[in-house]
Amino acid sequence: MELPKQITIKEVGPRDGLQNEDAFIPTSQKIKWIHHLAESGLKHVEVTSFVHPKKIPALKDADELTRQLPKKPGVTYSALVPNLKGLERAVACGVSEIAVFMSASETHNKANINKSIKETLPILRQTVKEANRQQIQVRGYISTAFFCPYEGHIEAKAVQMLSETLLEMGIYEVSVGDTVGTASPLHVEETLECLLKRIPRNRLAMHFHDTRGMALSNTLKALEMGITTFDSSCGGLGGCPYAPGAQGNTATEDLLYMCHQMGIHTGISDEKLLQQALYIEKNIGRSLPSKALQVWKQNMAKKGRGN
Amino acid sequence: MELPKQITIKEVGPRDGLQNEDAFIPTSQKIKWIHHLAESGLKHVEVTSFVHPKKIPALKDADELTRQLPKKPGVTYSALVPNLKGLERAVACGVSEIAVFMSASETHNKANINKSIKETLPILRQTVKEANRQQIQVRGYISTAFFCPYEGHIEAKAVQMLSETLLEMGIYEVSVGDTVGTASPLHVEETLECLLKRIPRNRLAMHFHDTRGMALSNTLKALEMGITTFDSSCGGLGGCPYAPGAQGNTATEDLLYMCHQMGIHTGISDEKLLQQALYIEKNIGRSLPSKALQVWKQNMAKKGRGN
Repeated sequence: MELPKQITIKEVGPRDGLQNEDAFIPTSQKIKWIHHLAESGLKHVEVTSFVHPKKIPALKDADELTRQLPKKPGVTYSALVPNLKGLERAVACGVSEIAVFMSASETHNKANINKSIKETLPILRQTVKEANRQQIQVRGYISTAFFCPYEGHIEAKAVQMLSETLLEMGIYEVSVGDTVGTASPLHVEETLECLLKRIPRNRLAMHFHDTRGMALSNTLKALEMGITTFDSSCGGLGGCPYAPGAQGNTATEDLLYMCHQMGIHTGISDEKLLQQALYIEKNIGRSLPSKALQVWKQNMAKKGRGN
Repeated sequence: MELPKQITIKEVGPRDGLQNEDAFIPTSQKIKWIHHLAESGLKHVEVTSFVHPKKIPALKDADELTRQLPKKPGVTYSALVPNLKGLERAVACGVSEIAVFMSASETHNKANINKSIKETLPILRQTVKEANRQQIQVRGYISTAFFCPYEGHIEAKAVQMLSETLLEMGIYEVSVGDTVGTASPLHVEETLECLLKRIPRNRLAMHFHDTRGMALSNTLKALEMGITTFDSSCGGLGGCPYAPGAQGNTATEDLLYMCHQMGIHTGISDEKLLQQALYIEKNIGRSLPSKALQVWKQNMAKKGRGN
């Protein structure tokens, strides 16, 4: 099996992870957590979202958070931005990278941002153009890229065309999202085969959700196809408030375990990352889905008991 | 990606699943459960273990269970047997297939059955010979085939030699176990490459534990290498009382989901299997690790609420 020697993991826990939580984590705790996530070796953390604060109450502190978050050399703190207005807020807070987003499915796009795909594209184009003018890098998410809870199967060709459109606008990378977590490795292979016909592999990232336990199998297939950038979430936090049935992202610790066991370099410390998963689990107050975290806690408990 | 068109799933929940549970499930409930597992389309269920009743209290009813379990045409109910004495009990109860077991690791073998590998082999040889003489099929487990919690990494060559020895004794299939759940897809590939040099693929089954969330990724790799028999456990029940840190088997429902999504035929009904996972979850009284089960329950709850 051919595997990349090194991959980049983009941590989305503070945004994609927390956005679906009822609990509001105080800004100071988020800042501490994000700082320590970066200390674990992560070079890219999506820290919040500049959508309307009422839409995602868990991230209503986007402005304070990004203003107060100490910069860290070599680490990019990115933020989700829906439009020019969001970009303005992000810029005012000193954000150096943004992510724009849309769905491959018409119905999910409508449910998520109340606009058709056709209406969304000019808004993104305007936002990307203005961001790039201000030397702000832009990443693009395509959600429901495999399956939409309203429309069902999504054609790979549609994702390919949308990806090309976003890249032409000036984004540097498309993150292809299995929002509901239904994709199989075969589906990943089919979609990537189609995308890679037109898009260089270093312009693609995969964003899997582990709703049905397939996130790592899908990651394996993407790794074998040469993809080297993956989104994941500390503890396996996550979901999508507008996609019924969507659950946590790939857990960063589980992804680390698989990659490190296969000799794939990530630059991230398992131990430090696990400590941060434990930290956010305690703050959220419920058991998080990451398997590596649960094993680590068990082992710690055993050590504590002296056996 | 080349995948088999059809696989055989061997359900080990009633034995490997229940053996690690504190709760004793009453025999009548086990019988009902096993009957319905077979009704879901499973053709092979390992129903109990004829080790000493004191060793695994959850399976202390092996004799009554196997005597009372109604036979089902086309379905094999198998039982774990440690030695001739266990075989005698199994035969007296009308069991038509047994499984013998040992570890690839000296220390785990000792911890599990208090014998060295060298001491174990003649006992198994005697048991297999006697079983075959009575027209009873024998399956063989090699546990800690990738990693031993006491000894660490296990050499593929050792597993290959042990597999050959067991097959020469007269077992029809070796089930290669990642008892602690540490294997990665790369490790699976390396081990299988070694095994397949000497052993036909239809003589091998894979037995994964999902301790670190790798069971399905490892299954994917084994499928790609042409393996077509997999052990799994309804609900993701399971563990090993003598392997610290070992957790549940591959969940049968999650395995079904992955296979069915990729067009691999199993002959098993997702819906019926999920109902049985729910049944045993209720009887055990704690949330089981299967992801497909948790999603199914959520969806049922939503339907119940009329949205």
